[in-house]
Amino acid sequence: MFTHEFKKRVRYAETDKMGYLYYGRYATLYEIGRVEWLRNIGISYRELEDVHGVILPVLSVESRFLKPAYYDEELTIISTVNEIPTKMIIFYHEILNGKEEKIHTGIVKLFFIDIKSNKRVSLPSLIKNAMESAK
Amino acid sequence: MFTHEFKKRVRYAETDKMGYLYYGRYATLYEIGRVEWLRNIGISYRELEDVHGVILPVLSVESRFLKPAYYDEELTIISTVNEIPTKMIIFYHEILNGKEEKIHTGIVKLFFIDIKSNKRVSLPSLIKNAMESAK
Amino acid sequence: MFTHEFKKRVRYAETDKMGYLYYGRYATLYEIGRVEWLRNIGISYRELEDVHGVILPVLSVESRFLKPAYYDEELTIISTVNEIPTKMIIFYHEILNGKEEKIHTGIVKLFFIDIKSNKRVSLPSLIKNAMESAK
Amino acid sequence: MFTHEFKKRVRYAETDKMGYLYYGRYATLYEIGRVEWLRNIGISYRELEDVHGVILPVLSVESRFLKPAYYDEELTIISTVNEIPTKMIIFYHEILNGKEEKIHTGIVKLFFIDIKSNKRVSLPSLIKNAMESAK
Repeated sequence: MFTHEFKKRVRYAETDKMGYLYYGRYATLYEIGRVEWLRNIGISYRELEDVHGVILPVLSVESRFLKPAYYDEELTIISTVNEIPTKMIIFYHEILNGKEEKIHTGIVKLFFIDIKSNKRVSLPSLIKNAMESAK
Repeated sequence: MFTHEFKKRVRYAETDKMGYLYYGRYATLYEIGRVEWLRNIGISYRELEDVHGVILPVLSVESRFLKPAYYDEELTIISTVNEIPTKMIIFYHEILNGKEEKIHTGIVKLFFIDIKSNKRVSLPSLIKNAMESAK
Repeated sequence: MFTHEFKKRVRYAETDKMGYLYYGRYATLYEIGRVEWLRNIGISYRELEDVHGVILPVLSVESRFLKPAYYDEELTIISTVNEIPTKMIIFYHEILNGKEEKIHTGIVKLFFIDIKSNKRVSLPSLIKNAMESAK
Repeated sequence: MFTHEFKKRVRYAETDKMGYLYYGRYATLYEIGRVEWLRNIGISYRELEDVHGVILPVLSVESRFLKPAYYDEELTIISTVNEIPTKMIIFYHEILNGKEEKIHTGIVKLFFIDIKSNKRVSLPSLIKNAMESAK
């Protein structure tokens, strides 16, 4: 329903001794995917934190590694949110390699914390309105 | 059944703007946990790759973030394998913070690849024998 | 003489507890700068390694930190090589922040190793020819 | 004059496609070296930031790469401060590989910032006193 694609090249710094993108680096791809997904509907994650005082800590991650990614490949991060969230937001990420093959999937659940009170809050209206406008 | 603990301090390099251990860094804790688990039963993962020609790529990861970890905390990585594996090995990791509170769990499934043939193989006898000796 | 610019956004993964781009991350910016500099004169660093059998290990780095870089800023990496190299290649990098202020300089010296012989070699003719064509 | 040694194993996450410790990872070794150097004279860098309100941003780094470091090697980070600092502190780091060979040197200059005023300050008396006691 709400999908955004973003390209990211695999850098030497991100490879490991096997010649693969290190398995721990996919979390950064999810981060890039969700931040660019937000930017695409008009929201700066930086402003969400600095101006609106809301942070989005991660609750859980589920990753499946289908094929390795290699040095210098330009990956496609496809990030999807299926519905307007209430108490948490779920991102579904698919990673394609340079040949457009699906090599990885990741599901990331995040919740909303008000920085001042350090308490959990519901979906900020900023995101809600942006998602409704983007429909 | 087969459990090993290892300590790891949170470094500045691993923190993020929130002041937390970055969520993508836990995969490295799992890596440290499983390599030290192997070393504890007498297996060098480096030798497994370089001498025995077997690599262990990751198939899937499931992570749950219960509480944040902070800069300079000495974390405890508790790594467990419940049974002698056949086609894949499953590591259960629990991370404790400096106050011995459980802050994170991770389940990592890995399989065995013979480097020469680039094919999937069963549990190397090297690991099997070491696990049986360690019982 | 040979200059190339490349944009790179600061990701959460790259920030630290101070809210800055972690000081150890600049080396990755140099890597991106030099690889894109090479691509700009028609050379794929991946092919240099995989097809031509030459790697470029780093000999030395000199870094000066003038101002911090912040989360989500789009940095400009300006990479320059002043002359056609012989035994080593020297990259001069300047990093600009989102306001186009110079915040960092880095000088990286690399040499050329033939993978087969594991010996130092002179500038590969592939790079030499590409630089002469780019003049 | 003031020297401290600390051991650090090279992890898979830190290797690159060449099979080496990635050249950008040495900055983290310097960080570990200087924080453990401080701890050794009785100072917690975390407390310096959180309790005393002083941060130590990096001004410059000079690195020389003599030999590569490999996966699973236990490196020794030798960190030295030659004199009691005034306006900045200079750390000299030597890295030894698993065979006790010197493979790397790094010189890191840091200054002192008071978090409240965001201004440069002189050496905090906390560090000065600790260094004088350690003589």
